[in-house]
Amino acid sequence: MQPNRVARILGIEKPVVQGPLSWLTDARLVAAVGNAGGLGVLGPNAGLTAATAVSTPEATAEKMREEIRKTKQLTEKPFGVNLIPTAENDIWTPAILPVIKEEGVKVVVYTGYGDGSLKPALFDELKAAGITIIYRDINPTPENSRRAEQAGADIIVATGFDEGGTLPGTALGTFTIVPLIVDAVQRVPVMAAGGITDARGARAVHALGAEGVFSGSVFISTIESRVPDSVKAKIVAANGLDLRLFRTLPDYYRALPGKLSDTLVAMDRAGASRAELAQAMGGLRGMRLGMLEGNTDEGYISVGAGIGNIHAITSVAEVVNQLAV
Amino acid sequence: MQPNRVARILGIEKPVVQGPLSWLTDARLVAAVGNAGGLGVLGPNAGLTAATAVSTPEATAEKMREEIRKTKQLTEKPFGVNLIPTAENDIWTPAILPVIKEEGVKVVVYTGYGDGSLKPALFDELKAAGITIIYRDINPTPENSRRAEQAGADIIVATGFDEGGTLPGTALGTFTIVPLIVDAVQRVPVMAAGGITDARGARAVHALGAEGVFSGSVFISTIESRVPDSVKAKIVAANGLDLRLFRTLPDYYRALPGKLSDTLVAMDRAGASRAELAQAMGGLRGMRLGMLEGNTDEGYISVGAGIGNIHAITSVAEVVNQLAV
Repeated sequence: MQPNRVARILGIEKPVVQGPLSWLTDARLVAAVGNAGGLGVLGPNAGLTAATAVSTPEATAEKMREEIRKTKQLTEKPFGVNLIPTAENDIWTPAILPVIKEEGVKVVVYTGYGDGSLKPALFDELKAAGITIIYRDINPTPENSRRAEQAGADIIVATGFDEGGTLPGTALGTFTIVPLIVDAVQRVPVMAAGGITDARGARAVHALGAEGVFSGSVFISTIESRVPDSVKAKIVAANGLDLRLFRTLPDYYRALPGKLSDTLVAMDRAGASRAELAQAMGGLRGMRLGMLEGNTDEGYISVGAGIGNIHAITSVAEVVNQLAV
Repeated sequence: MQPNRVARILGIEKPVVQGPLSWLTDARLVAAVGNAGGLGVLGPNAGLTAATAVSTPEATAEKMREEIRKTKQLTEKPFGVNLIPTAENDIWTPAILPVIKEEGVKVVVYTGYGDGSLKPALFDELKAAGITIIYRDINPTPENSRRAEQAGADIIVATGFDEGGTLPGTALGTFTIVPLIVDAVQRVPVMAAGGITDARGARAVHALGAEGVFSGSVFISTIESRVPDSVKAKIVAANGLDLRLFRTLPDYYRALPGKLSDTLVAMDRAGASRAELAQAMGGLRGMRLGMLEGNTDEGYISVGAGIGNIHAITSVAEVVNQLAV
């Protein structure tokens, strides 16, 4: 059997990547994933709280530098940082990219977020800096996967509707999107994302042609996660059928029951527009309130549909070992 | 390795069941599945066309008797008939059930369609007649799966949002629902449904804990299917991203592009109610027009999201062999 391509490309032991959850990652979580043999990824607002968050891109980039340095103190293994370039007026990428380069970060998870966010010049800049690129489009298609591959992506992530957070507008499940993207790309490996929370799911996506697992939600309920115990307990207790689906911008979200999410579902039923729902959600502030502060009156807990397989708060190492096929 | 439980229970060689597609099945298709080692199932309006369809339950039941007899002429293998009991005013089941018994049909696919359609007395009657029951709820949950098991179901089907036709309102993908139902039932095997169209998908659902594959769409584009070549060609050419999702009663549908489905998607975007959309769809008449007659101006072609794996019109035997793990 040939060695796993994803592990080789990323310089890790096990083809498991922790998805960069906004507000929820920090050096401790990311280092734990690396030390367990996977790849941890610092997401937006890594390590920050409402009290420590800053507003300008430059100050935020310096906060990311601090978290990168903390991570390096906790592990010698590679880890990644998330970039979410926007098609226009992208103020964040120019601020954070120099920090990523200066700190010698090995991997970028490049989130493709709509037309125009897949920028060949940015791929070139990352490649020139020797950075490995994992490309994850929020609406993966054969076309944008091939475009990312051509632009220089080293790994493509195929994400299905079983995921948490911003759901694909195509509403195609993990089961469907993975083989579609596997068949579309020419030479790079495809990782699967969307509801993968145990060994069964990991084996299943490998059967579908994926060469690794990209998971977010399953890391939220780990011992090393900075999320409050009340949120971890809710995840352990729930399954996918407890999640409420609602329309929002750009497409759909799912969230556990709570005052805010109940309101959002009711608004959706009553015919509110996606823009109205997005405003009522409070964007990433709503995620911070719900998931980092456990306040589901004003915030939401959005997780993948695979939470039914999570039956206990376990260590990151146990999760990585489960997901390593 | 122990012999496959689904195959043993159904008295077949390969744990593959052809889903009972309304209007699209007939003796030829069902017998071909049986002769290939799987289980074919006659669905509503099996073998009928607009010209030969009849209106009363009794006359329709006699038409089903004719199709059952034709099937028996074409195969000595077991096959099934679909029942879709409604919670109230169920006029079809009392008409067709005696025919099923009199003709010695071995298996019933019992479609659970909303609260109250899971009727213990009907399970008892089927069991007393020695009929094997495959229970498939359109909204599978741990609760209704356990209830069906307790009522006497021999096999439970866990269907995900990757399927065609009437989609689960829970919108949980095949990837998510299969392990959830596998973990919920006590003793009977679970088959997976929803977008399973090739060997990769079959292996994946087995990895998730399923013990067999229940597929509809992949049989529509077979040589033995009575669907017109124009419809088969559209299925072969399309993938899941070509399907348009829209709300309707009871929850959601997906369909290939066409005049009617484009209208339905536009109505959905414009905020039409589910009832208005259902009326515009024309119910099963719309399926007959679109899929049996190839008229997508007035009808729709609704198939599972896994059609991207279908690259040619092949024989039923090739399909069954692909799906047999």
